Amino acid sequence: MELSEYFPIWDQLTPAQQQKLSRAATVRFAPRGTLLQGGGRDCMGLLLIRSGQLRAYIFSDEGREVTLYRLFERDVCLFSATCVMRSLAPDITIEAEKDSEFWLICPEVYKELMEHSAPVANFTNEVMADRFSEVMWLMEQVMWKSVDKRLAAFLLDESALEGGPVLKLTHEKIANHMGTAREVVTRMLRYFQSEGMVELTRGTVEITDPKKLKKLR
Amino acid sequence: MELSEYFPIWDQLTPAQQQKLSRAATVRFAPRGTLLQGGGRDCMGLLLIRSGQLRAYIFSDEGREVTLYRLFERDVCLFSATCVMRSLAPDITIEAEKDSEFWLICPEVYKELMEHSAPVANFTNEVMADRFSEVMWLMEQVMWKSVDKRLAAFLLDESALEGGPVLKLTHEKIANHMGTAREVVTRMLRYFQSEGMVELTRGTVEITDPKKLKKLR
Repeated sequence: MELSEYFPIWDQLTPAQQQKLSRAATVRFAPRGTLLQGGGRDCMGLLLIRSGQLRAYIFSDEGREVTLYRLFERDVCLFSATCVMRSLAPDITIEAEKDSEFWLICPEVYKELMEHSAPVANFTNEVMADRFSEVMWLMEQVMWKSVDKRLAAFLLDESALEGGPVLKLTHEKIANHMGTAREVVTRMLRYFQSEGMVELTRGTVEITDPKKLKKLR
Repeated sequence: MELSEYFPIWDQLTPAQQQKLSRAATVRFAPRGTLLQGGGRDCMGLLLIRSGQLRAYIFSDEGREVTLYRLFERDVCLFSATCVMRSLAPDITIEAEKDSEFWLICPEVYKELMEHSAPVANFTNEVMADRFSEVMWLMEQVMWKSVDKRLAAFLLDESALEGGPVLKLTHEKIANHMGTAREVVTRMLRYFQSEGMVELTRGTVEITDPKKLKKLR
């Protein structure tokens, strides 16, 4: 588990750059629930995930949330290093959604590398383009898709992530992922239950008819 | 009006790169309403605007639209050159919102420049980060702000753009900018009129109390 195996464009760096990057990277562990960006933590650095799961989200003054995207093993988190780029202003919060281990790369060193290495700059570009695409996808969902379709898609995604049909999620938490009101989620889940697509118990949602749910999505 | 005066990082290019870029750039004119990306036109190249105004938007299967951002003189349009970046997938449509003149830069040449020049790659990064920030801003508006606030902000922005209080805009067009239904816009405009903030005539909206409108925003 060396940085050289994880950093996607390692081979395109000069030996001096490789050494610089290695020295600027430290392995860190963040237990589930740790805030990595936002809420007082700002620009700690680029994160390259070894294991675990991060969640990027925004929230309103009233405390409503919406999940923008998730990051997994081998993903790079750019929004914990917004100081690296002059124009990257959005106020995105990043939290460890599961116990996570990652390399933390010093933002100043990364910035310097980026300024001198076209491969590093282009790699950063690709990472940002990926996130941009994810946010645009979400935007389209929010703009054009009805809540039932979005909820169906969310439950199926979660089930794929967790590797099973039983999801430990409160209605509140689902609402926070989707950026909608808890009451709306509760109403829709009850409708899904009445249609036999899910089974609700306290704190869990079990997908009982994934086929039907997929049709809805 | 040379490319060298408009291209923001001209001085950071080598003479050979400057020559390459000059040769790859042609001045084009697009009358109001021309589609520059989307709707059959795909990856025509990077646009560097000399004059006019471009609009970037997305639309749904049902034909609903929402404006993502506008581009003005000296802005660079990246989404007409999505083929330059592997990961830039979103299906964004770009149209000339006013008669526009721009340099069209061949995407293959730009891509090659970007691969070899850290300044060009980093400049591209900054442009994308700018657009990303604008889309995130819009996302927050759509997620958390009510239609009245968004409409007030939209009318004030338009008035600033046009340099006057009289906006030649149908309710349909406003709805398309905001990604909402025409009926919702009409209802809200009538409410604004009853509050003395705007005056409605066929095809125009006149802002009569900008102060009150600003308070709402």
